[in-house]
Amino acid sequence: MQRDDAKPPRSPPREQRERELRVFGVNACRAVFERRPDAIRKAYVAEALVPRFRDALASLAQRRVGYRIVAEADLEKLTQSQHHEGVCFEVLRAPPAPLAELLRHDRARGEASLLVWLDGVGNPHNFGAVLRIAAHFGADAVLIPPGSTLALTGAAARVAEGAAEVVPLVATGELHGALEALRRARYEIAATVVRGGRDLYVESLPRRLVVVFGAEGTGLSRALASAVPAKLEIPGTGAVESLNIASAVAVVAAEHWRRHRGAKRA
Amino acid sequence: MQRDDAKPPRSPPREQRERELRVFGVNACRAVFERRPDAIRKAYVAEALVPRFRDALASLAQRRVGYRIVAEADLEKLTQSQHHEGVCFEVLRAPPAPLAELLRHDRARGEASLLVWLDGVGNPHNFGAVLRIAAHFGADAVLIPPGSTLALTGAAARVAEGAAEVVPLVATGELHGALEALRRARYEIAATVVRGGRDLYVESLPRRLVVVFGAEGTGLSRALASAVPAKLEIPGTGAVESLNIASAVAVVAAEHWRRHRGAKRA
Repeated sequence: MQRDDAKPPRSPPREQRERELRVFGVNACRAVFERRPDAIRKAYVAEALVPRFRDALASLAQRRVGYRIVAEADLEKLTQSQHHEGVCFEVLRAPPAPLAELLRHDRARGEASLLVWLDGVGNPHNFGAVLRIAAHFGADAVLIPPGSTLALTGAAARVAEGAAEVVPLVATGELHGALEALRRARYEIAATVVRGGRDLYVESLPRRLVVVFGAEGTGLSRALASAVPAKLEIPGTGAVESLNIASAVAVVAAEHWRRHRGAKRA
Repeated sequence: MQRDDAKPPRSPPREQRERELRVFGVNACRAVFERRPDAIRKAYVAEALVPRFRDALASLAQRRVGYRIVAEADLEKLTQSQHHEGVCFEVLRAPPAPLAELLRHDRARGEASLLVWLDGVGNPHNFGAVLRIAAHFGADAVLIPPGSTLALTGAAARVAEGAAEVVPLVATGELHGALEALRRARYEIAATVVRGGRDLYVESLPRRLVVVFGAEGTGLSRALASAVPAKLEIPGTGAVESLNIASAVAVVAAEHWRRHRGAKRA
């Protein structure tokens, strides 16, 4: 095994940051190792975590990928987080797939399917939670519109607990073309709103559904609101203005599971 | 109006920190002003936020409670957060109510009711999200067991977006006594587990329900697991180990609403 623990870790240059991502947290790093081992460029591990990652480190060493045993303080600096859990991998980003590719692979038209369209989620904690929910309830993709600043960060990947390696991120491309392609693929499209939509629990919920969630704070963009006439509302007491976006995704994805996926298991 | 913006804000001594809480964020501060104005001891507002809080500041001045116009940097220091949104109130904590008091006020026995029992949630983002979910779906309280380190922080109150003023926190006291009192009050009690529970969507869900959520990471304590035999599981693909605690609370509270509360609105 290669051990390369002499030099302290430095910040990568900008172009490298755009291609690579520092994933941290035990479950997030294990998921990368299990699903995309070739994407790992470098590993940083606290001494205490070495036994738990022995298989990964041995496999990296075989591929001549270096790893360093580092101190907690170095991991905090590397990950800019206290929640590194003793491990950080530098990983090649998986670029978002184009929508056409997702739909080309969706051969069994008519199968129940859920796609989660995020207009924008600034908070990495919420973005990570959304990925974890999407993986739990078997959403087929998280869709990201053009111009979105949404990009996976290390913090979001940690909160996703490995789900970032499970659920594909898909770039929708231009709005109207995307909606048309989704409709041709027999998806129905609905946008969630805080007030004035149809009650999620009264409405029929299409088996093949794209649910659009507006950006936190600002809500649905005007273009989306007019291009997607079907509006869904999560009913409640009205005591608070709304749920946060991750809670809203959880409630809608769970309801889609209950109606269209749960039966498969029984 | 009193303006008292000469001295820079300092950290309060320890005893004061235990009695008081620095609440920040627009919705969180507005909720305190609307529901417990007398609890506000001091206000710090960025110049830009003064118009939005003019009513609150005028009312505070009438009660001889001071406020300071402060710079963004001071607010960051005061709140130890970048998410202060320009406003911070020093507020007397509302101590958790005893369980007996909650049950004494629960006169309409037989009414649908949901109580959320949290064995422990370390992360303020998750705790705040749970309060917001509980307020949205009309849970009657969030229950906190003895020995819990759970306490409302300013960060949790901000994420709760005002819900910390809506949903009462209730101290359960000793475990077995609490479970007995809840059962006498005609609540059924179920604990959520990651695997090996009954499917939330197959099981009948009691109208008067206490749902126990284990601590993040460690799960249900042994004492709780054996004292609460009914176990519920949120079904899913199994692609990730579980949902985070806030997502799990959202799914269960939404399902309780769908079955027992939604009908009232129709």
